[in-house]
Amino acid sequence: MNGYFITFEGGEGAGKSTILQEVAAGLVTQGYDVVTTREPGGIKIAEKIRQVILNPEHTEMDARTEALLYAAARRQHLVEKVLPALTNGKIVLCDRFIDSSLAYQGYARGIGIDEIYQINQFAIEGTMPDLTLFFDISPEEGLKRIISNKEREQNRLDLEALSFHEKVQYAYYQLLNRFPERIKKIDAHQAIAEVKQRAYNEIIHYISSN
Amino acid sequence: MNGYFITFEGGEGAGKSTILQEVAAGLVTQGYDVVTTREPGGIKIAEKIRQVILNPEHTEMDARTEALLYAAARRQHLVEKVLPALTNGKIVLCDRFIDSSLAYQGYARGIGIDEIYQINQFAIEGTMPDLTLFFDISPEEGLKRIISNKEREQNRLDLEALSFHEKVQYAYYQLLNRFPERIKKIDAHQAIAEVKQRAYNEIIHYISSN
Repeated sequence: MNGYFITFEGGEGAGKSTILQEVAAGLVTQGYDVVTTREPGGIKIAEKIRQVILNPEHTEMDARTEALLYAAARRQHLVEKVLPALTNGKIVLCDRFIDSSLAYQGYARGIGIDEIYQINQFAIEGTMPDLTLFFDISPEEGLKRIISNKEREQNRLDLEALSFHEKVQYAYYQLLNRFPERIKKIDAHQAIAEVKQRAYNEIIHYISSN
Repeated sequence: MNGYFITFEGGEGAGKSTILQEVAAGLVTQGYDVVTTREPGGIKIAEKIRQVILNPEHTEMDARTEALLYAAARRQHLVEKVLPALTNGKIVLCDRFIDSSLAYQGYARGIGIDEIYQINQFAIEGTMPDLTLFFDISPEEGLKRIISNKEREQNRLDLEALSFHEKVQYAYYQLLNRFPERIKKIDAHQAIAEVKQRAYNEIIHYISSN
C-alpha cells in the first residue's frame, strides 16, 4: 500500500463533505493524485445495501442489523474502490468510515464501541485510515445548518432528535482520546475558508512526514 | 425463553426442507405449538438483504461482504420472528441458521470458522439453537438430487462446483466435533420416511428431557 488513506468525520452539518471537495481540488492543483469517495461510493452492491439501510419505511430495523449492513457496505466499497486506489499510490479522501460506525452505532445507539469495532475489523481487515480529520461542531449548530440547507436531501439519520446528535458528538470526543495519533480535531465553527485551510495543512503535514 | 429453538442443517439436496415440514406436521398432531421458518422468513428487511446476496448479477461480491449480509438478515429474522415465538413457548423449527454460515462462509469460502462465529455472535447475542439436526448426505448424491428436482429454483450457491460442496460437508463434520452436545447427525441417504422418523424421534427425545 503506497497511497494515503484519509477520512473525514464529524456530526451532521459540520461541512465536511464540502470541505473534502475543496481540499481535494487544492491537492490536485499541487500535483497530487487524489481520489474522493464516500460509502457506498458508486459501488453497485454497496449502493443496494445503502438503499436498505436508509429506506424511511424500515422503521423496524434493529440497531445490530443496521450495524452489520454498514459493515457489509464498507467492506465492498473498500475492496472495489479504496484498496485499488491505495495500491496505485493515490491519496484517498473518504467522507466517513469506521469512526462513524463507532460513534453512531457503537455509542449513540448503545451497542458498544468495542463490539462495533470488532465487526468492522472483520470488514476492513486492518485497513485503518492513516489520518482522520474530525470536524468538531456543536450539535445545535450542526442541526441548524442542515435545516437551513434546502438542497441537502434529508435522510433517516438527520431526523433523529438533538439528544442523539449530542451522543454522537460525545462519542467522537471519546474516539479522539482513544486514537490521538490518528485523529486530528478541527474546529468547524470557523469560517469555511479557514476550516478548509486547516484541513489542507493537516494533510500536507502528514504526507510530508510519512 | 420457554420455547425450543431447533435448527435443520446440511449440504444441498439433503432433503431437510421437506423433512422439516413433515416433522412439524407430526408435532402439531401431537398437540405441540410449532413455528416453521427459514431465513429470511418473510421478514421484509431480511428479504431485501437476501435479494442482494442471491442476485446472480452480483459476481463481484466479496466473501466477507456476503458473510456480513447473512449475519444482518439473520439478526432481523431472529428479532422479528424467532425470539417472539420462543418467548411464547413455541417450538421453532428453522431451516438453516448459524452453522450454515460457519460451514459455507467460514470454512468453504475460507474466511475462518472462528471469525464467522464472532460476527454471528454479534448478530444473535447468544441465542444458539437448543438442538441442531445435521442431515448427512454425500455431496455427489446431494447434487444429483438437486439437478433432478426441476421444481426447485436453483440459486447462485447451488451452482458452485462439487469441490465447494465437499468442503461444506467436511465443515459440518468439524462442527459435529465442536458442538457434540447440540448437533445430532442423521443419515440422509436412507428412505425419506425413515429420515423423517429419526428426526422426529430426536426432537421428541430432546423436548422430553429438557
